[in-house]
Amino acid sequence: MPYLLNSICTISGVFYKYAKRHGDSSILTKREMKRLILEDLLKIYHGFLLFQNPRDRKTVELTFQMLDTNGDGLVDFNEYLLLILKVAEACYSHLKPS
Amino acid sequence: MPYLLNSICTISGVFYKYAKRHGDSSILTKREMKRLILEDLLKIYHGFLLFQNPRDRKTVELTFQMLDTNGDGLVDFNEYLLLILKVAEACYSHLKPS
Repeated sequence: MPYLLNSICTISGVFYKYAKRHGDSSILTKREMKRLILEDLLKIYHGFLLFQNPRDRKTVELTFQMLDTNGDGLVDFNEYLLLILKVAEACYSHLKPS
Repeated sequence: MPYLLNSICTISGVFYKYAKRHGDSSILTKREMKRLILEDLLKIYHGFLLFQNPRDRKTVELTFQMLDTNGDGLVDFNEYLLLILKVAEACYSHLKPS
């Protein structure tokens, strides 16, 4: 599989890995989002020093609120992609000569 | 590097690979976008059968128009990410049980 497509499918696959746990694979519950943050996003936070202490409850809560743009207590795939965009922009700003 | 971060940085890196060619790495000219489509996106189009003949001029033109949302004849990083979102959604719809 072409590496660009492989990267994009990896991003979709991470959402699916957590969303399918409670049956409805189109949304992440807070609990599933917390696991995604702790298991996958923390390493990214470390890389970009986005938070003082990525492990504490406030970080998880803040991330969840940031993503749950319609306030329904769930994170759907498009809301998840907002976070991916933010990280992609941070990645890109590191690549681009200042 | 964590695989999710690696995937996101790969996506940013593909934009940078083409955008830096003419000096200003924050935008893609039509020529650079055409090369990105022909060298990287065609394989994705094949995978998702998005176009009858991904190689013809119309496909490149259509893709460029779709991405150049502000009509300035250039594609910036955020406009590029719109395409990535579309492919991610297509990927996800293949993952999710119908």
